[in-house]
Amino acid sequence: MSLNHGRTILAIPGPSVIPDRVLTAMHRPSASIYDGELVEMTDGLLADLKRVAGTDGFAAIYLANGHGAWEAALRNTLNAGDKIVVLSNGFFSHKWGTVAQSLGLQVEFIEYGMTKSADPQRLEEVLGADKNGEIKAVLAVQSETSSSVRNDVVALRAAIDAAGHSALFMVDCIASLGCDRFEMDAFGVDVMVSAGQKGMMNPIGLAFVFFNDKADGARARANPGQYWDWIDRAKSESFYPRWSGSPPGHLMFALRETLDMMVHEEGMPAVWARHTTIAKAIWAACDVWAQAGSLHLNITDPAKRATGVTTINTLPGVAHKIRTWCQNEAGVTLGNSLGFPQEELEDHFRIGHMGHLNIHMIMGVLGAIETALIAQRIEHGSGALAAAAHMLSTHGNTGKDTK
Amino acid sequence: MSLNHGRTILAIPGPSVIPDRVLTAMHRPSASIYDGELVEMTDGLLADLKRVAGTDGFAAIYLANGHGAWEAALRNTLNAGDKIVVLSNGFFSHKWGTVAQSLGLQVEFIEYGMTKSADPQRLEEVLGADKNGEIKAVLAVQSETSSSVRNDVVALRAAIDAAGHSALFMVDCIASLGCDRFEMDAFGVDVMVSAGQKGMMNPIGLAFVFFNDKADGARARANPGQYWDWIDRAKSESFYPRWSGSPPGHLMFALRETLDMMVHEEGMPAVWARHTTIAKAIWAACDVWAQAGSLHLNITDPAKRATGVTTINTLPGVAHKIRTWCQNEAGVTLGNSLGFPQEELEDHFRIGHMGHLNIHMIMGVLGAIETALIAQRIEHGSGALAAAAHMLSTHGNTGKDTK
Amino acid sequence: MSLNHGRTILAIPGPSVIPDRVLTAMHRPSASIYDGELVEMTDGLLADLKRVAGTDGFAAIYLANGHGAWEAALRNTLNAGDKIVVLSNGFFSHKWGTVAQSLGLQVEFIEYGMTKSADPQRLEEVLGADKNGEIKAVLAVQSETSSSVRNDVVALRAAIDAAGHSALFMVDCIASLGCDRFEMDAFGVDVMVSAGQKGMMNPIGLAFVFFNDKADGARARANPGQYWDWIDRAKSESFYPRWSGSPPGHLMFALRETLDMMVHEEGMPAVWARHTTIAKAIWAACDVWAQAGSLHLNITDPAKRATGVTTINTLPGVAHKIRTWCQNEAGVTLGNSLGFPQEELEDHFRIGHMGHLNIHMIMGVLGAIETALIAQRIEHGSGALAAAAHMLSTHGNTGKDTK
Amino acid sequence: MSLNHGRTILAIPGPSVIPDRVLTAMHRPSASIYDGELVEMTDGLLADLKRVAGTDGFAAIYLANGHGAWEAALRNTLNAGDKIVVLSNGFFSHKWGTVAQSLGLQVEFIEYGMTKSADPQRLEEVLGADKNGEIKAVLAVQSETSSSVRNDVVALRAAIDAAGHSALFMVDCIASLGCDRFEMDAFGVDVMVSAGQKGMMNPIGLAFVFFNDKADGARARANPGQYWDWIDRAKSESFYPRWSGSPPGHLMFALRETLDMMVHEEGMPAVWARHTTIAKAIWAACDVWAQAGSLHLNITDPAKRATGVTTINTLPGVAHKIRTWCQNEAGVTLGNSLGFPQEELEDHFRIGHMGHLNIHMIMGVLGAIETALIAQRIEHGSGALAAAAHMLSTHGNTGKDTK
Repeated sequence: MSLNHGRTILAIPGPSVIPDRVLTAMHRPSASIYDGELVEMTDGLLADLKRVAGTDGFAAIYLANGHGAWEAALRNTLNAGDKIVVLSNGFFSHKWGTVAQSLGLQVEFIEYGMTKSADPQRLEEVLGADKNGEIKAVLAVQSETSSSVRNDVVALRAAIDAAGHSALFMVDCIASLGCDRFEMDAFGVDVMVSAGQKGMMNPIGLAFVFFNDKADGARARANPGQYWDWIDRAKSESFYPRWSGSPPGHLMFALRETLDMMVHEEGMPAVWARHTTIAKAIWAACDVWAQAGSLHLNITDPAKRATGVTTINTLPGVAHKIRTWCQNEAGVTLGNSLGFPQEELEDHFRIGHMGHLNIHMIMGVLGAIETALIAQRIEHGSGALAAAAHMLSTHGNTGKDTK
Repeated sequence: MSLNHGRTILAIPGPSVIPDRVLTAMHRPSASIYDGELVEMTDGLLADLKRVAGTDGFAAIYLANGHGAWEAALRNTLNAGDKIVVLSNGFFSHKWGTVAQSLGLQVEFIEYGMTKSADPQRLEEVLGADKNGEIKAVLAVQSETSSSVRNDVVALRAAIDAAGHSALFMVDCIASLGCDRFEMDAFGVDVMVSAGQKGMMNPIGLAFVFFNDKADGARARANPGQYWDWIDRAKSESFYPRWSGSPPGHLMFALRETLDMMVHEEGMPAVWARHTTIAKAIWAACDVWAQAGSLHLNITDPAKRATGVTTINTLPGVAHKIRTWCQNEAGVTLGNSLGFPQEELEDHFRIGHMGHLNIHMIMGVLGAIETALIAQRIEHGSGALAAAAHMLSTHGNTGKDTK
Repeated sequence: MSLNHGRTILAIPGPSVIPDRVLTAMHRPSASIYDGELVEMTDGLLADLKRVAGTDGFAAIYLANGHGAWEAALRNTLNAGDKIVVLSNGFFSHKWGTVAQSLGLQVEFIEYGMTKSADPQRLEEVLGADKNGEIKAVLAVQSETSSSVRNDVVALRAAIDAAGHSALFMVDCIASLGCDRFEMDAFGVDVMVSAGQKGMMNPIGLAFVFFNDKADGARARANPGQYWDWIDRAKSESFYPRWSGSPPGHLMFALRETLDMMVHEEGMPAVWARHTTIAKAIWAACDVWAQAGSLHLNITDPAKRATGVTTINTLPGVAHKIRTWCQNEAGVTLGNSLGFPQEELEDHFRIGHMGHLNIHMIMGVLGAIETALIAQRIEHGSGALAAAAHMLSTHGNTGKDTK
Repeated sequence: MSLNHGRTILAIPGPSVIPDRVLTAMHRPSASIYDGELVEMTDGLLADLKRVAGTDGFAAIYLANGHGAWEAALRNTLNAGDKIVVLSNGFFSHKWGTVAQSLGLQVEFIEYGMTKSADPQRLEEVLGADKNGEIKAVLAVQSETSSSVRNDVVALRAAIDAAGHSALFMVDCIASLGCDRFEMDAFGVDVMVSAGQKGMMNPIGLAFVFFNDKADGARARANPGQYWDWIDRAKSESFYPRWSGSPPGHLMFALRETLDMMVHEEGMPAVWARHTTIAKAIWAACDVWAQAGSLHLNITDPAKRATGVTTINTLPGVAHKIRTWCQNEAGVTLGNSLGFPQEELEDHFRIGHMGHLNIHMIMGVLGAIETALIAQRIEHGSGALAAAAHMLSTHGNTGKDTK
């Protein structure tokens, strides 16, 4: 007999749960690519994406995943041989640097390991030492999907300014857009990249690049080629160039639906506040479980934790046991270990808590983990679920949490 | 800010959660009503329904809800003026008697209130007193949706036998089929009625009547009229009479899918065992919450509790607060108060736990209630969720629970 | 190699093609049965159904097919032993009489065969001869699905009036509602029955009964029993009685969608006009094909043809060849022979042209038949498709056609 | 009154009609990106794509549209400054050359206008004159979406061979894969690019690049960067590199479904034969209409016509009238004028006839056009639909057509 017969849930840091209405929006015939709804909706998609990103600059949508967005941002602003600095706090921030290398860029990695957010001081020093302005860009993630650390984007911007450096500041919000508060213009970000399948609640398929006038100035000196070129995608008044050929109608319908949900129905401050409360509930449960020593949160300082993903470290093999049991018995898929040493493959797991979530779903995920801990006889502090419930119960007062 | 933005769940005693694959099976054009899949699948639907019901007798499917099934059972076996006995343990068992009265039957209600299962002794006495065999049928529910009491069908059969009475034994399994163990032939039931939207995981629309040869003998003396007549539906070798006209294709596709899941993939013993474990988890949580006196299970004796629905009594107004909060804040719809005195409308609620369920969903529902208790400052024992998790963690050993 | 790999179409007289948006409306979780959308939409469903039917009287919705609606109408107004007259022009009108017999009614059939509409004179004579007013009801179809003849409902009403008879006038619009112009109050109909899966474009599952005060007066002397009783369904101010138990949520969502399309978007006069034009196009094609003698329309007089279904008679075996070829090679399922002598099973076919149709779909069906005629070397007049296209091209002027 | 209320159809050269089962395959939650079905299906997708393409070489799948596939092919094999020859027969073949220019390639266009297929002699001369082997690649479309001309790929290969030239032969099958017979290895093609939304019946989102060892040798000297690099996508034994990051699960499910249909159910020879017959039916109708002089097929020689799209030239303004009427009145969207002089914008239209098609759909499209011709009083030959039907009726004998 198995209990695993109901509705399953992906509690991984992307793809996140797709709302029913988004799947419904995609269950339809293709639309005409000459006129009508696809043509009419493109302006609105770009405008609403910019509202999500907090920018009056430009937005470009690509049929691509996050890796494509990384490349688009780099190809539009840099040329082979250019030097850049990459702040690395885990698998994906490092990987962005690797992609940059594949384009012929000279990459200086500043490594922070798997538990630390980027140190603004260090960045300021590095830039300060670049007397000739050879560094053309600084790349950082807002939240690192693998380690679940969150960088302080505002502080990093301040460090660049303090160094009086002209490098472009490029931020990867793939794991954070729609989860962590982010305001591109206010935060002083020149280029931001993201994708649809995490906080944005879309199926995998669309990637987004936002840029300001300064970054667009760099475009004039770069050679992105046709597909990644952001000029037509962001600025063309014709339909065909905006999508560089055939427009991805079904993914556009999905995006339209989630933008309606986020921008027009819930509102970004409420979206962020919801994610904050949910994250706190998860951390509260983990902290109680941690009392018995079998597991603990990877990021110690709550102020440095990502809002949409939580990485948990365990005694050897425990993470693997929890993940396996939750998937096989409880209908819950948890995130795997990523970016840690290969020999720790079974010692970390991640909870994705981004997007289309509520109390039922979160308590269900935590309840599944609690059940796994009991079933697998893993020592854990008692009262974890009640602690999470307590945090969720107070959300009426949490408006201030997101300030 | 509201946390209520994710996937919601109906935790009411029907309709239950419809599996995605069932909705998918219905998202298709109508099929031909002359030949092909509809014609070919009808035999299999009836055969598999009989496997679910545990009978080698007959099955008829109606486009109707449970009230229709009640009427079909009565019209095929009884005539206006006939006397029957109705064992009433709540709203629906009583209502079946009312429907019988609307057909001109003479109904003797044996009332057990809202907290007691039917007493076999009492039934034996009533039948024993019927020296002339005027009572033509005994009607009972296996599980009463409103009070969540479960009757001991085997014991009731024994009582009828002990009285040496020939009345037909008719059982309503609307809230129990696919939840509580039920074996029509082994249990000595002559007519059983059920519907698709509870343990069977279908959208509302199909009702089922099962009957044995003895009941079919009564049919010969009754006048059900065309629509309810079970002869053609159960026995015809032609397609058109089996559905008394147009066959409900989309609902047939849904039923086919759930029968595949129950009969061919999971197997009825595993279905029952899963429901038993889940029910025990819910009761365990409720018993812990009950320690503070604000609420308690309506049915004291675990052996008399329905497996698919649980009724909970609370201090005045508390149930209403819990239901409202769960629906507005947590994405969980709980069952209302039904069958209790009108002045207690806000003092009872029900949890539906039937059908397409797993650990994630159940812990999510219980977690939502725990959160509501905290948010509404309702006194409750601590450790309820852990108690539920503990029960769910042991399911590997629970094969015997369902014996 | 087969050409049959694209989207198929059911061109049968019900179920008709379900619009995508209707399937989409059904692809969703069940709704709460306590409050919210189901409760709120019920009033609107009944009100809009009455707009479709052209009545200020009452409407009741049943989870049933058309046979159920027949029975509901009879059980609410008549008692076993009552005498009724049934005007029979084919399989279904006769079958309604048979159902009446199953309820114990005394049925006098007036048979018109498979090619004639009901003669008002004859009805007037029969009623005139009923000096004691023993005839309680006159039953007729507006359009007979099997023969595709249409009765003149207004003329039949006039005949009843001319005879000065008080019998209830009950009309079956199962194959005509949403196809043939019908205005219940203006036409003087007392009871009208229909179902969802033909002109109403729903999946099979809902049946409708409309009645006026006179019919409701008859209800007071009848004993319909709980399920069919139209009082609660039509008049209750509570939700539960309106559906006699569990409401069929998914079918309600479907119905809501089609009522929006018919009543609020297209408008009934436009719906009728569209069906009229399409029917004329089909007849035009058939008349051209008929020039070679292999096939001809079953109903000679255009004024007596149903607007939603067309029955075609062929030389022996030809109909079977056409149907088989269209289904196996062209993606088109045509209606079979129904109601004709058993030995003519392969000599008739029907085209359903009801509901969600446009020029592409109709020309596709006719084009498939033309291709079948060529492939099967069946003699046929040339220019049939152009004749249909010509009729369809003129629809801008056809407002008057429906007057 | 409008007749336009049924199911619409896109009869444009991509996106084509998506089969219901493909939409259904996409209506589901996201799958895990760690293990399970996505991981397991990737091998099969690549293998079956190669069966469609007729190659034992390599296949890479990109989240991109056709423009992305163009760029991928070029970036993997060429470097800025390399010289290539582009055979241009219309908008898209020319556009591929423009994209090549955006990557810094030196492009020599050989222009054939809008009505001629590429002349192998001319190609042989150009290559023969390239004594130093400066030309690194020859780019051509198999079928040009705008003009609907088909190039003779085998003859072009022969011309390259005759010139004894080592240039890579790259063919765009975006509008022809799954329509026109194509066998990459047998035809001697080194790189082939295509996309999902035309003959492959997918929603827009996936693009494909196929390459042989010779092309892969060129890859060693090129710098495609991370996203377009075909090495990992085609050859990696790990899952993550195959998709260069997040795998597009929903589009993969769609592709799996269409590959099942094409490769495992229908078979490529049958797919091609079906398209051939359908194309002949469309041409037959057009040739009859053409007798009155208002319109004619753009490509005169049937051997040079694309199998999946047909471009039609009309008297001034007539194409626009036909397109507008079909869209507004008949539910049919036809392709627009593309690649012709701007002043002829209303004088050409295209019929897309690729993918999920059958007799019903094709006769419906042609029937809609015939109706438009009549409604708009456009002179046209009579008997066009019968001519198409005649062609479709003979398909049993057309196996040889595709040899």
